[in-house]
Amino acid sequence: METVLRSYLSDNTAGASTEILDAVVRAADGLAAPYGNDGLSKEMTEQFGAVFEHAVDVFPVTTGSAANGLALAALTPPWGSILCHPDGHITTDEAGAPEFFTDGAKITLVDGPGSKIDPELLRAAVGRRRGDVHSVQPAVLSLTQVTETGSVYTLDELRELSAIAHGAGLRVHMDGARFANALVALGVTPAELTWRLGVDVLSFGATKNGAMTADAIVSFDPGLRTELAYRHKRGGQLTAKMRFQSAQLAAYLRDDLWLRNARQANAMARRLADGLPERADAAANILFCRFPVELSRALKERGFAFYDDRWEPGTVRLVTSFAHRTEDIDAFLTAVHELAPVVA
Amino acid sequence: METVLRSYLSDNTAGASTEILDAVVRAADGLAAPYGNDGLSKEMTEQFGAVFEHAVDVFPVTTGSAANGLALAALTPPWGSILCHPDGHITTDEAGAPEFFTDGAKITLVDGPGSKIDPELLRAAVGRRRGDVHSVQPAVLSLTQVTETGSVYTLDELRELSAIAHGAGLRVHMDGARFANALVALGVTPAELTWRLGVDVLSFGATKNGAMTADAIVSFDPGLRTELAYRHKRGGQLTAKMRFQSAQLAAYLRDDLWLRNARQANAMARRLADGLPERADAAANILFCRFPVELSRALKERGFAFYDDRWEPGTVRLVTSFAHRTEDIDAFLTAVHELAPVVA
Amino acid sequence: METVLRSYLSDNTAGASTEILDAVVRAADGLAAPYGNDGLSKEMTEQFGAVFEHAVDVFPVTTGSAANGLALAALTPPWGSILCHPDGHITTDEAGAPEFFTDGAKITLVDGPGSKIDPELLRAAVGRRRGDVHSVQPAVLSLTQVTETGSVYTLDELRELSAIAHGAGLRVHMDGARFANALVALGVTPAELTWRLGVDVLSFGATKNGAMTADAIVSFDPGLRTELAYRHKRGGQLTAKMRFQSAQLAAYLRDDLWLRNARQANAMARRLADGLPERADAAANILFCRFPVELSRALKERGFAFYDDRWEPGTVRLVTSFAHRTEDIDAFLTAVHELAPVVA
Amino acid sequence: METVLRSYLSDNTAGASTEILDAVVRAADGLAAPYGNDGLSKEMTEQFGAVFEHAVDVFPVTTGSAANGLALAALTPPWGSILCHPDGHITTDEAGAPEFFTDGAKITLVDGPGSKIDPELLRAAVGRRRGDVHSVQPAVLSLTQVTETGSVYTLDELRELSAIAHGAGLRVHMDGARFANALVALGVTPAELTWRLGVDVLSFGATKNGAMTADAIVSFDPGLRTELAYRHKRGGQLTAKMRFQSAQLAAYLRDDLWLRNARQANAMARRLADGLPERADAAANILFCRFPVELSRALKERGFAFYDDRWEPGTVRLVTSFAHRTEDIDAFLTAVHELAPVVA
Repeated sequence: METVLRSYLSDNTAGASTEILDAVVRAADGLAAPYGNDGLSKEMTEQFGAVFEHAVDVFPVTTGSAANGLALAALTPPWGSILCHPDGHITTDEAGAPEFFTDGAKITLVDGPGSKIDPELLRAAVGRRRGDVHSVQPAVLSLTQVTETGSVYTLDELRELSAIAHGAGLRVHMDGARFANALVALGVTPAELTWRLGVDVLSFGATKNGAMTADAIVSFDPGLRTELAYRHKRGGQLTAKMRFQSAQLAAYLRDDLWLRNARQANAMARRLADGLPERADAAANILFCRFPVELSRALKERGFAFYDDRWEPGTVRLVTSFAHRTEDIDAFLTAVHELAPVVA
Repeated sequence: METVLRSYLSDNTAGASTEILDAVVRAADGLAAPYGNDGLSKEMTEQFGAVFEHAVDVFPVTTGSAANGLALAALTPPWGSILCHPDGHITTDEAGAPEFFTDGAKITLVDGPGSKIDPELLRAAVGRRRGDVHSVQPAVLSLTQVTETGSVYTLDELRELSAIAHGAGLRVHMDGARFANALVALGVTPAELTWRLGVDVLSFGATKNGAMTADAIVSFDPGLRTELAYRHKRGGQLTAKMRFQSAQLAAYLRDDLWLRNARQANAMARRLADGLPERADAAANILFCRFPVELSRALKERGFAFYDDRWEPGTVRLVTSFAHRTEDIDAFLTAVHELAPVVA
Repeated sequence: METVLRSYLSDNTAGASTEILDAVVRAADGLAAPYGNDGLSKEMTEQFGAVFEHAVDVFPVTTGSAANGLALAALTPPWGSILCHPDGHITTDEAGAPEFFTDGAKITLVDGPGSKIDPELLRAAVGRRRGDVHSVQPAVLSLTQVTETGSVYTLDELRELSAIAHGAGLRVHMDGARFANALVALGVTPAELTWRLGVDVLSFGATKNGAMTADAIVSFDPGLRTELAYRHKRGGQLTAKMRFQSAQLAAYLRDDLWLRNARQANAMARRLADGLPERADAAANILFCRFPVELSRALKERGFAFYDDRWEPGTVRLVTSFAHRTEDIDAFLTAVHELAPVVA
Repeated sequence: METVLRSYLSDNTAGASTEILDAVVRAADGLAAPYGNDGLSKEMTEQFGAVFEHAVDVFPVTTGSAANGLALAALTPPWGSILCHPDGHITTDEAGAPEFFTDGAKITLVDGPGSKIDPELLRAAVGRRRGDVHSVQPAVLSLTQVTETGSVYTLDELRELSAIAHGAGLRVHMDGARFANALVALGVTPAELTWRLGVDVLSFGATKNGAMTADAIVSFDPGLRTELAYRHKRGGQLTAKMRFQSAQLAAYLRDDLWLRNARQANAMARRLADGLPERADAAANILFCRFPVELSRALKERGFAFYDDRWEPGTVRLVTSFAHRTEDIDAFLTAVHELAPVVA
C-alpha cells in the first residue's frame, strides 16, 4: 500500500475493509444453495431486519444504478414521473438507467438550494396535471441522502418532503449510496432515517463505504416483494453465488463496521474542512472549497488528486473515505499550507 | 469444509478457487480509479486479448443473464428475432431478461436433437419472412456451448451453424456459461471456438468454474464497443470498484486456472459416468442417467443431492464442478452400488 | 366500382360500408371537444354498453395490433407470459408489437388442432414454473375468435379454456379481429361470447367488416380503466378528432350493420365452399381448399386473386367480406368449374 | 352547423375540409391492396416527394404523438437524449410517448425565450458530457414549428440551430403539428423549411388543419426507411386500409388545400389580434392576450370558449382554425368591445 493516500477523487477509489474481505474468503468454504437460498443470505436478511427494526426484503445488487433502477421500477408505472433534484445521481450519472429499468418513466426535476428539494416546489410538483391523461403522473419522490454535493437532509426536512409525497399518493424512494455517512452525520438510527419517515424502498449503498461490490435494495413494503424479485432476476442481478454478496453485506453491518467506517470518513472530511485556509462545510464526507487554480496545480504536482474541472474555475471537491487516516489528511493540509502562500 | 462433497445439483453451488480469493484480497490494496479505469482492469482486458488471440472488448458482469441480455441487445434491433434452441437458458431460465435488455426482441425456437440446433431447421428459420414488415426479422443466432443438457457442439457443427447464420445476415452469439468446460472437452483453443468460427460476442462464464461473481461479455467486433459500453452502464453493470471483478477474471485466466478447473470438473463427470451401473455420457461436466425412484430416494437419505424432478420420472441430472475430487465421486459411486441392489 | 369483385386475398381489401361513410361525413359538422370528450364518443361508449349488456370502457384504435398490444399490456406485467396458439396473429404477424407494448413480456405457444388451443396443453401451460423467479409467469390467455385459419371456437370450448386460465390466476384476452363473423357463425350474443365466458378485454375489430380505420379495445373490467387510458395516450392512439372513429364505431353497431355485414361475408364463404368441386369447410368467412397449381394459375390469369403460396403447394385460402355479392361468388365458381376440367 | 363558431380552444376542435371528406368517400370504392400497397398510398408518397422537392418516405399515422415517438425512435438510441424546449409538446403533453417509443431515451430541456430554443444554450447542450459513459448522449434536436405558444422560428433561426446540432453529430427532428401554418406565415416552400435546413425527419401534421385523423412521418433520409417501416408496424400504426389515410393526405396537398386552410386560420388569428383592445401578436394561428377575469367570464357566458386557466390569471389563449370565418371573428371582437367597458 502506498504510504500516504493522496486521492480525494471519490470514496469509490478505496479498496475494501479487512472484515469484508475476511468474510468473503470464509464464504467460499463448501457448497451452498444458489440464488439466495443459502444460509448466509438468509441470515443477512434477518440482520437487516434487526438493524432497521422492521421486516424487510433485501435484494443484493452490484451497482447503485441497478438498485435505483429496480427500486424505481417497482414504485412507478411507465407513465409515471419520478420527482428528483436536478443534482440527482439518477438523472445526471446513470446514462438513463432509471428510464431503462422503468420501461420509460420520466424524471421530473424539482429544484432547491444545496441539492435538497424545496418543499414548496415539491408541493406544486406532486399535484401537477394529476389525472390528466396527456401528462405523465407524479408517482415517486426520489431523495438522495447524503446528497450528491455532500449536504445532509435533516429528519425534519425529510419528514416534510415525504409527507407531501405520500399526501399526494406518491411513493418515496431514498438513494442511500452514502446512507451510513448520513446516519452518523445525523446521529440517528436506520429506522428513523427510513420507514419511520415514510421511505418505501431504500437503495442501500455499501460499496463506497468498505464493501467490494455489494449494494442492496431494502424494501419496507412486503407488497413489492414479488415484483422486486422478478425484476431483480430479469434485470440480471440475481447472482448464482449470492453468498459472496451476502457475506459482504453481513460483515458490513456486523459490529457496526459500517458506522465505524462512515464515522472515519466523515471525521476525515471534517478534519480537512477545519484545517483549510478558508473553513469549508463538511456535513458528511464530501466537501467543496475554493482553491486558486495555481494551488490546485501545485497540489496535483505533488501527487494529490481531486476534481476541480466540473464547476466554475477554482471550485474543488474533496471526498474522503473510510480508508483515509489522520496522517493522510494532515499531509494534505500541510501541503496546502506550504503551497498556498507560494502560489499566491 | 465438509469432508465429502455430496451435491451434484449444479456447478454454481461450489465456492471459489483459492487463486481467485487471493487475487481479490490483493486487489483491495490501495486506491484505484473506478469504473474500469484501474490498472487491473486494463491488464485483464489485455490478458483476454492474448488468450483469445484477437483484440477484444471485455465488459465484466455479475450474472450470465446480464451477459446474455446485453450481448443480445447489441446484436439485434427490437424488431429482430433471436434464434435459439428450445432448451436455451435464455428462453427457459432468465425470466425474460433477453426481452428486457433488447427492448422486446423475440426469441424464436429452432429445435434439434441433444439440445443442439439442427442445421436444416436453422436454414429454414434464418430466411423466414425476411423483409416482411409484418414479421420480426431473424437477427442473431444464439448458441449455448456447453449446452444446457451437457452436450458439446463439435467445431464442425458450430462452423456450419455459424455459416448459415452469417450467410443470411445474422450475427452469432455464444452463451458460454460453461465455456471452459467446452474448451477442454474439445481440446481446442479459445480462438478456435469463437471468432474463428464466426462468433461475434461471447458470454464468458467464470462463476460456475471457480470465480465468485464474475462473468464477462467478450466482444470480437470493435464496432459494438460504444453501444456495449452504454448498455453496460445503463443496464446497471458498470461497477465502481471493477477491480474486484477484473482481479477474479485475471486470476481465472492466469496459469490456466480456468482450464485446470474445467478439466477437473469434466474428469469428475467422466469418472461418475464410467462408474455408474449403466454407463452414461458425459461430454463435459453434466450427465444424465436413469435411477430407479427408490435409488434416488435412498441416495438423498444419505445426504446426496441432485435434481430428478424436472424430467420424466427416473431421469437424474448430475453436475460436477472444479470442487469435486476423486474421493467425492467414489463415495457417490460406492453408495450407488451399495444401494442399487437393495432398492431393486 | 369494378363490376365483379375478384379478390379473395383478405377481408381488409374491401372498402367501407356506406353507412360508415355517411356517419363520418356527418361527424365532420361543427366543432367538437377533442380526445374523446365529444358527444359522439360518449354515445358510442353507451352503445357498446347496451350491445354488450355490461358497463364497458371503449378505447378506439386504428389497428388490431394496437388493440392487442395495449390490451395485453394492461393484462400482464413485463415478466409475464402470454399464452397463445402458434397460429396466433399476435405471434406471427405483428412484428413484435405485443412485445413492444408490454415492455417485453413473452409469448408462449400452446398448440392444438385447427388453430384452437388444446385444453390439456393449456392446463399444463398455466401451471408451468409458477412462482419460480427464473421463469416468466403465465399471466394472460389470448384467444383469437374467429381464428386465423377461419375456425370458430364453440362457447363450450371457450368456456373451458377461460375457466382453466382464470382458475390459475390468468386473465383472458380475446383477439376479435373478426368478432362479428364469429357472433353470426355461432348465433350468440356479444355478452355470451365475451364477459359471460370470462373475457376480460376484447380487441374489437370493425375495419375488416365495413369500417374504414376503426377498431377498439373493449374492457369489461373497470379496474383497468386508468391504466388503459394512459397506455392508450402514451401508445399514440388517443386521437384529437376521436369523433371520426367514434362515428364509425357507432354506425357499425347501429341497426345491426355489423351483423348484417358479417352475415353477408359468412354466407358468401359458405356459398363458395358449397359450390367448389370438393366441398370445403367455411365456419365463418375464411375457407381453405385444394386447387391444382394449374387451376390456381388459370384463375389468376382471369383476374381472380387469392393466396396459395403460404402453405404446402395446392393449398388455397379464400376470404370473403361484406362487399362480396352472390354474383361475385358465382362468377368465381363458374370460372372454377370451367377451368378445372381443362387444366386437369 | 352552428351559425357562429365560438370556440377558440384549439384547432383540433374543427371538423374536416369538404375536399378531405370527398376524398375519403371516393377512396372507399372497390377493393385495394392493404397496408400501403394500394395505388392511392403510392401516389400520395409521390405527391409528397413533389411538394417537398426531395425523395421522401411517408408513413401515415393517426396521432402526432405517434409521429413524434416513431420519428424520434429512429433518430436516437435508448441511451441518447432528445434536446427540446421546455414548452415542447413531446415533453409536456404526450404522457411519455417519446420515452415509450424510444425505449427510454431521455428528454433534455434547452430553454429560450418565446418557446424557441436559444442557440447559445443549445451550443452548450450538444457537447455536454459527450463520450462520458455515465451520461446519456445528445442524439437529436427536436424543434416545434409553429411552436406550442404560437411563435414561428425564422429560417435563419432554424438554420443556426440545425447547424449547431449537425455540427455536433446530432440529427434534427421537426414537430410540424402546425407545419402548414408555419409555411404560410413565413411564405417559404416546404423544402426551404425542412431538408434544406437540415431537418432529417418531419412530423407532418394534417389533422389540425383540415384532415380527419391523418398525420404522417416524412423522412428525408432513405437510410431510416427500413427502421421506420418496422417501428411503424410494431408501433401499431400500419393500418390495413391505409388508403383512407392516404386519401386524406393526398387531398390535403392537392390544389394547395393545406396552404389555403392554413392561410385562413392565420388570417383569422391576425384579424383577432388586430381587433383586440390591446394589440396582440399572432405569428400563425395561436395568440395570447390579457383579458380581465371578468371579461373572460362574461365572454364565456355568451358561449365563447377558450383557455384562460393554464397560465397566470388574466392570460388568455385563442386558437383559430381553417373553419373560422371572418364573421366568426367579428362576432367575437364585437362581444369583446361590448363587454370590456362593462366589466371594467
